[in-house]
Amino acid sequence: MRASDRVDEGRLWQRHVDMAKLGGLPKGGVNRQALSPEDAAARRQLGAWAAARGFDVYGDPIGNLYVRRAGIQEDAPPVLTGSHMDSQPTGGKYDGMYGVLAGFEALEALEDSGIRTKRPIAVVAWVNEEGSRFQPGAMGSAVWGGDYPLDSMLAVTDRSGKRLGDALAETLAAAPCRVVSGFDRRFHAYIEAHIEQGPRLEAEGCAIGVVTGIQGSQRYTVDISGEEAHAGTTPLRVRKDALRSAISVVEALQRHMHDPEDVVRFTVGRFECRPGSPNTVPGHVHFTIDFRHPDAGVLARLGGGIERVVAASAGPCTATVARITDVAPTVFDPRIVGLVRAKAEALGLANMDMPSGAGHDAMHVAPHGPAGMIFVPCERGISHNEAEAARPGDLAAGARVLADCLTELANE
Amino acid sequence: MRASDRVDEGRLWQRHVDMAKLGGLPKGGVNRQALSPEDAAARRQLGAWAAARGFDVYGDPIGNLYVRRAGIQEDAPPVLTGSHMDSQPTGGKYDGMYGVLAGFEALEALEDSGIRTKRPIAVVAWVNEEGSRFQPGAMGSAVWGGDYPLDSMLAVTDRSGKRLGDALAETLAAAPCRVVSGFDRRFHAYIEAHIEQGPRLEAEGCAIGVVTGIQGSQRYTVDISGEEAHAGTTPLRVRKDALRSAISVVEALQRHMHDPEDVVRFTVGRFECRPGSPNTVPGHVHFTIDFRHPDAGVLARLGGGIERVVAASAGPCTATVARITDVAPTVFDPRIVGLVRAKAEALGLANMDMPSGAGHDAMHVAPHGPAGMIFVPCERGISHNEAEAARPGDLAAGARVLADCLTELANE
Repeated sequence: MRASDRVDEGRLWQRHVDMAKLGGLPKGGVNRQALSPEDAAARRQLGAWAAARGFDVYGDPIGNLYVRRAGIQEDAPPVLTGSHMDSQPTGGKYDGMYGVLAGFEALEALEDSGIRTKRPIAVVAWVNEEGSRFQPGAMGSAVWGGDYPLDSMLAVTDRSGKRLGDALAETLAAAPCRVVSGFDRRFHAYIEAHIEQGPRLEAEGCAIGVVTGIQGSQRYTVDISGEEAHAGTTPLRVRKDALRSAISVVEALQRHMHDPEDVVRFTVGRFECRPGSPNTVPGHVHFTIDFRHPDAGVLARLGGGIERVVAASAGPCTATVARITDVAPTVFDPRIVGLVRAKAEALGLANMDMPSGAGHDAMHVAPHGPAGMIFVPCERGISHNEAEAARPGDLAAGARVLADCLTELANE
Repeated sequence: MRASDRVDEGRLWQRHVDMAKLGGLPKGGVNRQALSPEDAAARRQLGAWAAARGFDVYGDPIGNLYVRRAGIQEDAPPVLTGSHMDSQPTGGKYDGMYGVLAGFEALEALEDSGIRTKRPIAVVAWVNEEGSRFQPGAMGSAVWGGDYPLDSMLAVTDRSGKRLGDALAETLAAAPCRVVSGFDRRFHAYIEAHIEQGPRLEAEGCAIGVVTGIQGSQRYTVDISGEEAHAGTTPLRVRKDALRSAISVVEALQRHMHDPEDVVRFTVGRFECRPGSPNTVPGHVHFTIDFRHPDAGVLARLGGGIERVVAASAGPCTATVARITDVAPTVFDPRIVGLVRAKAEALGLANMDMPSGAGHDAMHVAPHGPAGMIFVPCERGISHNEAEAARPGDLAAGARVLADCLTELANE
């Protein structure tokens, strides 16, 4: 018997339904931002399910949450799987949560099939992957991996001024668990399951995406400062209109980033204009840039030009650019990539190799050991959207591939 | 003795200093939005000053506040003066408040000089001129003038969902006064004093602007709807990026409104982008258009083209345009204009005729009787800005012209 034989499509689906109630929104999505009361509720829920199966549950100093199934050799480096449970402000039910629940389903399938593994297997719910409330995103895995210092991340504040460390303390008060000191980066292998968040698997009729790597990404903030003035009296010639300048800047950046092959991903996602009164010329605009590409050279060249383009197009206003993150492209371990492909084949599942367009916690894990990812299709590739949708059969198929990969790795 | 002889520059200045504390901001401006606790405090302050001089104080059903000095013929239609006490979210200390305090100074100067007038004179503090919190602006004078229905204005809500009627009730609880039923539109003449909010008087070295009229204005809201999507995975070709479309729309409107003579006033003052997450393609943008011109024909032609321009430039997104206000240009009564000019001349004050670039409550009063305005300079024309500044001597000069105009009109 394989672990995949005991993956239960109905149980896995019901767990998604249950989790979607925590932070559920009227249009069917979720608002379960990192370390919010809704995130705490999800942690409590996962902990309760784990306790019911006798799995060990614990956290680390940045708030990553672990559910661990014991191995025969408890001191052997564990096999890790997982993803994240936080969401965008108007996010979907599957982004991140699927990787946690697929990992948990694999642990349950192992229990139900009576398979004991040599190594322990732990499901990790990485904290704050989305970075909507606290920036930067992928914070939990990055701090775990040593990419960001713990202390400065605990001091990050959200837009209301709340410190992440205080939000974490409130979360642990609402969803208590044992907290270990430090970060244990010893692991045998890591596999993260995730919805594709893009249209390719659906278009190709594939159940499984064998993920070969993750494109690199850069994040910037831009601030444009002008001068507030009366909309009725101030001649346009003498205005320092921050919105007019910001619009010129974004247009210039769009030209700078233009790519006929449509591989560049350039997004201005947050754009805030102050003071926001209809009859006052805006004095300030703040916006973000999200820029991604699979090629490190293109990232360096186009990203390196941003500051110059902004300065040249801000007109009478002053502009400042800050680079918030710069994550190099990730290439996954060929042995893990091959294992995912082989297990999908063994299960008779149509599959294809593909890079990941989105960033994932796996990119902070990969530098420390063998890592890979499994993608499953989502409807029309829509994600970061309440309309995000996936089919129960596709979710179960990915969990089956994951369960068989984890079993094999945990017996090495 | 003329009333202007008893206008007290120090007293008038101190009243501005006292009022600036109510809603005062760190950078020297004020946030005293309509029917806020700060607005209520200003009403309480004005009422206390009026009571100390024995003037009658009362309100009307939309919340306009009146301070009335008795006339010899109490049943004769009164002479009105005034302006507004509410401010922009980051507004200045003089916009609106000057007209109320200059009117009040004129009443005090009449008291101090022992002049009794045939007609009563009332200072009006029109409610919600700015329209920052509750739209549309100039609401108090417009409801008084019958331009907007009372009931629908009481039902207007702010961005937190609070009804104006409820905010008014809270304001009256905090700053009680007698409230009369209905609106009494009988008046002999109306003169509103105001800072210019533009650079012309300062540039020409004039103390007094003799205001000949007010340019017309139109206000629109535009909503652009696209589709939220993941910033890392969604190819630009298939995006429905509401921000990208909104930027194209605003650029197209800027071209449509371009005026080599720089008379057109076109402003996008509020621009809101949702959901506002750095790694989500924006699904919705809402923005406002403020468009003004002194010529009714130009207003009709350019304003009439807005909907077509928006529809043609929204790309893959859908766009809707709503016209919120459409105020025709105002031409002031030549007799009032002449009286202001004559009183300025009699006081030896350099003056110039000029139209008003900003809208004022006077535009809703003018259709019902003889009306005019007096402008005084403000530094660099800066207004709707915490840096708004005016000189005590200029404020007093305007109050002197106002006092002499009111005296003459109230004895007709």
